[in-house]
Amino acid sequence: MSTWKTRLAWLRALPEPIPAEANTPAAVAEIEAKTYFDKKQEKVSFQREESLGEAYEILKTASGYTLRGGETGLLYGVYALIFALETGSPLPQGVQKPYYPLRMLNCWDNMSGDIERGYAGRSLWFEGGRFSYDPDRIRQLGRMLGSVGINVLCLNNVNVHQPAQELIDGFLPEVSAFAALLRPFGVRLMLSIDFSQPIKDVGTADPLDERVQGWWADTAKRVWAAVPDLAGFLVKADSEHRPGPNTYDRTHAEGANMLARVLRPFGGKLVWRAFVYNCMQDWRDTKTDRPRAAYDLYKPLDGAFDDNVILQVKHGPYDFQVREPVSPLLLGMERTALSVEFQLAQEYTGQQIDLYAMPPLWREVFDQMGKRRVSAIAAVSNLGRDDCWTGHPFAALNLFAYGLFARNPDSDPETVIRTWAKLTYALPEDQTGTLTALLLKSRSVYEKYTANLGLCWMITPNSHYGPNPYGYEFQAWGTYTRADRNAVGIDRSEAGTGYVAQYPPALKALYESPETCPDNLLLFFHRLPYDFVMRDGRTLIQRLYDDHFEGFKQVQAMAEVLEKLTLPEPDRQEARRRMEAQLTNAREWRDILNTFFHRFCGVPDAKGRKIYD
Amino acid sequence: MSTWKTRLAWLRALPEPIPAEANTPAAVAEIEAKTYFDKKQEKVSFQREESLGEAYEILKTASGYTLRGGETGLLYGVYALIFALETGSPLPQGVQKPYYPLRMLNCWDNMSGDIERGYAGRSLWFEGGRFSYDPDRIRQLGRMLGSVGINVLCLNNVNVHQPAQELIDGFLPEVSAFAALLRPFGVRLMLSIDFSQPIKDVGTADPLDERVQGWWADTAKRVWAAVPDLAGFLVKADSEHRPGPNTYDRTHAEGANMLARVLRPFGGKLVWRAFVYNCMQDWRDTKTDRPRAAYDLYKPLDGAFDDNVILQVKHGPYDFQVREPVSPLLLGMERTALSVEFQLAQEYTGQQIDLYAMPPLWREVFDQMGKRRVSAIAAVSNLGRDDCWTGHPFAALNLFAYGLFARNPDSDPETVIRTWAKLTYALPEDQTGTLTALLLKSRSVYEKYTANLGLCWMITPNSHYGPNPYGYEFQAWGTYTRADRNAVGIDRSEAGTGYVAQYPPALKALYESPETCPDNLLLFFHRLPYDFVMRDGRTLIQRLYDDHFEGFKQVQAMAEVLEKLTLPEPDRQEARRRMEAQLTNAREWRDILNTFFHRFCGVPDAKGRKIYD
Repeated sequence: MSTWKTRLAWLRALPEPIPAEANTPAAVAEIEAKTYFDKKQEKVSFQREESLGEAYEILKTASGYTLRGGETGLLYGVYALIFALETGSPLPQGVQKPYYPLRMLNCWDNMSGDIERGYAGRSLWFEGGRFSYDPDRIRQLGRMLGSVGINVLCLNNVNVHQPAQELIDGFLPEVSAFAALLRPFGVRLMLSIDFSQPIKDVGTADPLDERVQGWWADTAKRVWAAVPDLAGFLVKADSEHRPGPNTYDRTHAEGANMLARVLRPFGGKLVWRAFVYNCMQDWRDTKTDRPRAAYDLYKPLDGAFDDNVILQVKHGPYDFQVREPVSPLLLGMERTALSVEFQLAQEYTGQQIDLYAMPPLWREVFDQMGKRRVSAIAAVSNLGRDDCWTGHPFAALNLFAYGLFARNPDSDPETVIRTWAKLTYALPEDQTGTLTALLLKSRSVYEKYTANLGLCWMITPNSHYGPNPYGYEFQAWGTYTRADRNAVGIDRSEAGTGYVAQYPPALKALYESPETCPDNLLLFFHRLPYDFVMRDGRTLIQRLYDDHFEGFKQVQAMAEVLEKLTLPEPDRQEARRRMEAQLTNAREWRDILNTFFHRFCGVPDAKGRKIYD
Repeated sequence: MSTWKTRLAWLRALPEPIPAEANTPAAVAEIEAKTYFDKKQEKVSFQREESLGEAYEILKTASGYTLRGGETGLLYGVYALIFALETGSPLPQGVQKPYYPLRMLNCWDNMSGDIERGYAGRSLWFEGGRFSYDPDRIRQLGRMLGSVGINVLCLNNVNVHQPAQELIDGFLPEVSAFAALLRPFGVRLMLSIDFSQPIKDVGTADPLDERVQGWWADTAKRVWAAVPDLAGFLVKADSEHRPGPNTYDRTHAEGANMLARVLRPFGGKLVWRAFVYNCMQDWRDTKTDRPRAAYDLYKPLDGAFDDNVILQVKHGPYDFQVREPVSPLLLGMERTALSVEFQLAQEYTGQQIDLYAMPPLWREVFDQMGKRRVSAIAAVSNLGRDDCWTGHPFAALNLFAYGLFARNPDSDPETVIRTWAKLTYALPEDQTGTLTALLLKSRSVYEKYTANLGLCWMITPNSHYGPNPYGYEFQAWGTYTRADRNAVGIDRSEAGTGYVAQYPPALKALYESPETCPDNLLLFFHRLPYDFVMRDGRTLIQRLYDDHFEGFKQVQAMAEVLEKLTLPEPDRQEARRRMEAQLTNAREWRDILNTFFHRFCGVPDAKGRKIYD
């Protein structure tokens, strides 16, 4: 019995639920096509070719359409066709094959029902230490994911607060049943495991110890028996101060390979999260530089990982900040299978209150990465038990768009946003354009008032929401602005921390000098005096002030625009309510950052605007 | 069955437990005297005179001593006599009567078992939403309190997180049984209530509504039937954003008097906590000044409270900071019964890790208050389920000393500390002196590195431990230093926020000018440039640096001294372990505050010591 009122999000054109009997992608594809095209009195015929796998081709025929593809490819083709027709877009030409074979959604759901950094309510499937969900809702979730080609869902938090072993020991039948709900939509499960798990049984987690290897082999056998198509294991080693390979003087490659070999017989992938947790430092120490940490640790291991290991690397060197350069690790690991990780959960980017559409960010990352050996893609989920799935109804855009970018990293942000807007809301054409423009601009607006010129981490500790310019300044996380009365920023040039040397020559040359470094990363890479003259002739401090003032004004303009949209309820009220919070937040950011810098440098605003004492 | 290993704290000379059969103060007094003096082959005779109440007189006789007193007075007399003999102090001469009739310990214990701002483990009597305790331990606690004359224990947190109604509705038999454990030691219970409780039954908490008055009358009848000697109710009105008198456009006097009239038939006191919770402000607003809030609200109500209302006022205008001036409310309420409130729980004063002996603080407060109409005294408990009761074994001093000051606010800090040291540890005389000196100085040391010149609130938000000079700077609590590149502090003179005008003329004159204001409150009352020249010829900034450097050095010296003390285990190890944490903490304070101010002002240390960039 469903206790949840179906919210269709971008599946507005497909209002009928998928019956539980449809338990293969082929069956779902048939139903979706029949329901949609019968109304149109058009026909869709299927031409199944297993060798095409997830790929598909759409062919126009006299009476309708023919789809060619593998089983999942046909499902993807149906959604692509419906989306194209609904949005009046041209049909995809030729065989469409997803760029990344693994397109993962990492859910930070704890078995308690909490979601780490979740901003859309509690877990959709865990509560009180066990599985608890509405199967109709999970099917609808599967359908949403399948409709945009997300093909792996990692079920539990990679920070395994509740021992992952509990999930594996006590709940395999439930995991199996859950997997069955998503399978018809082409979505496979992945599980987060805790590297230190064998300790409780064999007293060690040393990857070179045969007992440990045997323990994992037994575990994998049990797990794959329950879920034969499990995609693999996700590991954050040395997680939360628990033992990892380094505890036993083993490298991360030795740790990852041990697990990968255990998973190989089952075709499983071992996703190893390249997050160096033990990167705490003393704020007095100006030599250590946290953005260097991942590269310093993993670059020497390039080539040492087995081929079913995927090293999962955050898109930037810090931690999903509003503005970071691309991670040098993504550019530097030539002989390692990589996954680039994004965070749909808006931990540092407005927490699904403030608007922050991510496609422009991804466009930049993919442009910088080029066509390198990145073989998978992952994103931290922004989902939760809220009726609208994502807290802010517009935040669903990021999930939708993530799927499209994962299939095609050459996607155009504006097109993707417009597609989502059309599929979600039946607005008049001009309003669709307005909403698209609003969202397209939202990241640059948020950046302006919270992190202009690449100055990040000026946030409230722990909550990560709201301005707190010195909040992390003396903490152990390497997250400093080092603002003083004369200057701000960290010198990461070769003469500074040397971080810039982790980049390939062209980028290194670009970032090395303040004269060539892009404005939006200027204070990430350089320490500059407040009177530094920028390329546009303004001083650094004036640019800081200007951006904060402008960012707030832009939020005001966004709020006015939002008022004019004839969105359906409850989305309209919800979006307006959150926009009010964003306005309050933006005003705090503007005033606190301006006051903070003004107190240091004493320079008045050239335009005489109010800066509080 | 006792699961707890008796820790005697300052009752070292009385190692035998008090049997459960001793259920009156008279019986306890007899047993304590007999056990102690039989060994000495001395005799104590009792002369009970009910009219003396809690007062007593000790008379030396040929064969021993005669005690005169009311029933509780005799108990107090026995402990006073034993303590004097144990410490080699002169016997108290003449009739000894406690100065404050109500000497209250306010416990911030939640029924969950948590203690708000507790640093000594979980609640001694609550766990998991119900009563849960070891009766032997509670009796021992009663004995400790009785031995220093604390005569009221408020059982539950004044921030009534778990509805106080639950305690009153569901647990009156348990409250009654608990009261019986403490009664033989002269300790009565008090309960915290929630002003808004009647809402659930009568739909309002308006104090002028007859249904509300009737509801409270019924409640009081039930409560006093269970605990006939209950001391009264403690109320923090408008607590935690729940309704209070202001919600109904009633004054706090109307709210308090309504309850006081309900309690009058039972002889109960209504203790009304003069804490203005809704004092949130905008950091941009430089006119509003939080220290003014309590006086501004309550001074106009002076004389409006019934005579069984006690207005409980924190000793300073802020919130138990390391250094505050005395609250002007304590000096200004001429026609209102007052209670002065201290906080033994070291929320802002080292959290029972760093040493912070409070008697010097109390000496100053009482000296400033003089013999005003203060009719009660209260302190927030520092107790918990730790073996040693108070986290740090030395923190028991503050509980002990509080009792002595509550009976005699003219007490001398050094004498009180020495008395505690002798009663607690059988150290050689020179070591007792060393320990006494260490503790006597501990507050001034802590002040030096955390809050010199009256600059408080430079702490980590929420935890309230460790340096965070801008942590509260842009928050809503009125807790600002307003440090900038030129100056620091808030001008609270008449030309500033006018706070100083809340003081009587002599103090007002003292504080009004930076020339006369005591150094330790200089930046509490004044905003001064870093190059302000202090009375000793040093600049303000140099004094800030000097104190931070000296404070840390003094902690190093304390650590060395501590090493030399032959304390019994486990106290020795525990004290050393905590001292190591204090050293780490003090170093962070020194370096972070120095760097913070140096970044603003750019002035180097005159003595060339290391200030980090």
